[in-house]
Amino acid sequence: MNYSIIRYIIGWVLVLEAIFMLMPCLVALIYQEKSGVAFITTAAICAVIGLLMIGKKPKNKNYYAREGFVIVSLSWIVMGLFGALPFVLSGEIPSYVDALFEIVSGFTTTGASILNDVEALSHACLFWRSFSHWIGGMGVFVFLLIVLPLTGGSNMHLMRAESPGPSVGKLVPKVRETAKILYLIYIVMTIIEMIILLVGGMPVFDAITLSFGTAGTGGFGIKNSSIADYSVFCQAVITVFMILFGVNFNFYYYLLGKNKGNAFKMEEVRWYFIIILASIGLITFNIRGQFESLPMAFHHAAFQVGSVITTTGYATSDFNLWPQMSKTILVLIMFIGACAGSTGGGIKVSRILIMFKTIGQEIKTLIHPRSVHTMKLDDKAVDKSVVRGVGAFLMTYAVIFCASLLLITLDGKDLVTNFTAVTATINNIGPGLMDVGPTGNFAGFSVLSKCVFIFNMLAGRLELYPVLLLFTPAVWRKN
Amino acid sequence: MNYSIIRYIIGWVLVLEAIFMLMPCLVALIYQEKSGVAFITTAAICAVIGLLMIGKKPKNKNYYAREGFVIVSLSWIVMGLFGALPFVLSGEIPSYVDALFEIVSGFTTTGASILNDVEALSHACLFWRSFSHWIGGMGVFVFLLIVLPLTGGSNMHLMRAESPGPSVGKLVPKVRETAKILYLIYIVMTIIEMIILLVGGMPVFDAITLSFGTAGTGGFGIKNSSIADYSVFCQAVITVFMILFGVNFNFYYYLLGKNKGNAFKMEEVRWYFIIILASIGLITFNIRGQFESLPMAFHHAAFQVGSVITTTGYATSDFNLWPQMSKTILVLIMFIGACAGSTGGGIKVSRILIMFKTIGQEIKTLIHPRSVHTMKLDDKAVDKSVVRGVGAFLMTYAVIFCASLLLITLDGKDLVTNFTAVTATINNIGPGLMDVGPTGNFAGFSVLSKCVFIFNMLAGRLELYPVLLLFTPAVWRKN
Repeated sequence: MNYSIIRYIIGWVLVLEAIFMLMPCLVALIYQEKSGVAFITTAAICAVIGLLMIGKKPKNKNYYAREGFVIVSLSWIVMGLFGALPFVLSGEIPSYVDALFEIVSGFTTTGASILNDVEALSHACLFWRSFSHWIGGMGVFVFLLIVLPLTGGSNMHLMRAESPGPSVGKLVPKVRETAKILYLIYIVMTIIEMIILLVGGMPVFDAITLSFGTAGTGGFGIKNSSIADYSVFCQAVITVFMILFGVNFNFYYYLLGKNKGNAFKMEEVRWYFIIILASIGLITFNIRGQFESLPMAFHHAAFQVGSVITTTGYATSDFNLWPQMSKTILVLIMFIGACAGSTGGGIKVSRILIMFKTIGQEIKTLIHPRSVHTMKLDDKAVDKSVVRGVGAFLMTYAVIFCASLLLITLDGKDLVTNFTAVTATINNIGPGLMDVGPTGNFAGFSVLSKCVFIFNMLAGRLELYPVLLLFTPAVWRKN
Repeated sequence: MNYSIIRYIIGWVLVLEAIFMLMPCLVALIYQEKSGVAFITTAAICAVIGLLMIGKKPKNKNYYAREGFVIVSLSWIVMGLFGALPFVLSGEIPSYVDALFEIVSGFTTTGASILNDVEALSHACLFWRSFSHWIGGMGVFVFLLIVLPLTGGSNMHLMRAESPGPSVGKLVPKVRETAKILYLIYIVMTIIEMIILLVGGMPVFDAITLSFGTAGTGGFGIKNSSIADYSVFCQAVITVFMILFGVNFNFYYYLLGKNKGNAFKMEEVRWYFIIILASIGLITFNIRGQFESLPMAFHHAAFQVGSVITTTGYATSDFNLWPQMSKTILVLIMFIGACAGSTGGGIKVSRILIMFKTIGQEIKTLIHPRSVHTMKLDDKAVDKSVVRGVGAFLMTYAVIFCASLLLITLDGKDLVTNFTAVTATINNIGPGLMDVGPTGNFAGFSVLSKCVFIFNMLAGRLELYPVLLLFTPAVWRKN
């Protein structure tokens, strides 16, 4: 275990967080809010501690997979611990656990809130919440790899530990170049959304924060009614962009490059759209009676499906009041989630695909026990370790899910609230059903349950293992 | 595909069912009930059709895995189709779909009912319901292999397709001898339970039928109050026997043989008891306020845990009214189920064990990517195909579960009812929560939903694949 490299990189993460925090300071300045003091104080604390940590460069810059996992999960925890401070210092979220819940929900792009009244927050705090979605969406390390003077060949370990999906490939041979391309697509798409929303008549502050929330597939709104009070045009724009940010970013890279064909060969993207269209179709049909016209039913169905499958969590309508079938479809796609390599959470469409292919193979093996079958995805053979990894992932997921469900029953809430609260946090969605439905929030849970949810959000965002490994003694051995 | 062997063996199954049906005829004779006519008529129909089918012996008696799967699942369907007739002919369950639901629930040892008033049934029908549990518990083919003059070496395919668990081993080299040993243990244990219940003052008819239900881990009661109105002694006896019938039968074989040590080496059995004790402990503590004394709370907790983990489904208390934590524990152990090689259903403790070991291995692989790890169970290396099979099983299980959940939402029932109704049928338990709780039943569902449940019960009992393969075109190809 290379402890000094862990200290060194976490130091950089803190410095980065200090820089990020200057943005809400600027917002506070513009709106003349005194919460700016809380942000500048925290930024200073982060900067000082961070600089102290990077002061002494590690002699040995080599590290392996397990250091990669530990660095990434510890960094996310540290970012949360410091990111929560401005809420507490400004007095806008007095309880530290609540503040931690809120900012972890932000960074992990969950969007679950403990606030009963979002509109009571200052602009700076609202901005920080939404900006944390944007930072967490693409990932801190993808960003850090661009700016950090780390040249070891082991940086792939960081990216692999942070990026979602069963297997992480580099778009171009160099990790740093891949990171640059991804962030460029991310920034450009976010700006395009902002511009269209502005054109649609949305106020500047709303357009910026909501675009951050869409891009990171986060879901924090700045109004108590989430997105319900905006114009149908703006809602439609957000629908489209939520779905676009749930697409595997490799798709856009291929689309912009010379091999446009590769983009359309991506089975995951194809199935992602098939699932979305099927869900929208079924729900539109199911809820048609609750809206004035079929197009409006379609509009709300599309918004909610896009919001849930990409694990964003914005709402235009209280789907807790929708018929049973629509609610069940929404719960099911909460688990499916977005594409690997997108900013969305959940199990990921590619894992679901590999799952179905595994079932198909098992059936073939039962019929013809002696023949050998190779699994293919995008016309390429899938490595056996990937298939095994997907199986293990689903099992780990189920175990964490059940353990969380059991722990939060101590609060005595109903089964649907509990079940969907765990679903909404581990899949980084935000709202669930009943008490935690689109009009509810997580304020009513005990401190223990909130800690369980914080764990779930982090575990979900980092795809379980980085966080789990922190609790494995073998990781910490000196070698 | 060897079609003539399929016809031939299904013919034998029908003859066997005709013989089984003579038992309720006898009951009707004793109680002077006219429902006996329905049973003797159906027995005659089964016998005639069965004898016609076995009239011409197949030239080629060899068959392979896929014929094995098809024979087993078709036989179970045929048994259900004919087994439902007496209910309809006697007029006691007028709807054929309801009658089919009831008898499939019987054979698959589920114990879910569509009856609002069980006590309105004749003794013969009550006996047939409970007896179907006993037949289905150990399996028709395990029985058939003892009596049938089939000598091909391919009989293992039948046993493998019908017996529960991730891998089926023969206790002794010959399949027929293994089958004999299993049935002997089964019969002796059932008789011991009957005797103890009789000693405890239970009426003869009740002792026989309830013992059948316990042995098969079925759960059909003969009273509307299930087991609630019997003495505490009788309830305790049933608790113990439910748990004993959920143990892997190899355990008893080892215990009676020379290698008693093997019995205690079985990790599955050890964990089965650990899970039971932990669940009873937690629930006792959680429900202590609802009962007059701690021992009574323990009594009911033990009964319910035993009933649910073995997927029996008897009830002494309406656990739908228990606190959230207890209900959640019960729902979780509904999924775990009993041991492989027992008469119980569910995912099986051994699969859960292999699942946890898979997670452990994945974590080890992440920390030390280059080292090789072998999974061990009972001190023996687990074959890779078994590990892969468990993964595929869990995935298939999840897919069938979600598809069923979606289909039954059309009835508009609440999410907890729907979720636990699917849980209760695919795991062959019987009762769930809310509308299908211990005091409810499945009568309120539509015909479509009932068909989904019938599929789930069969799929659950035969461990998914035999039933799924019926829908796979490749299986039916002529080679």
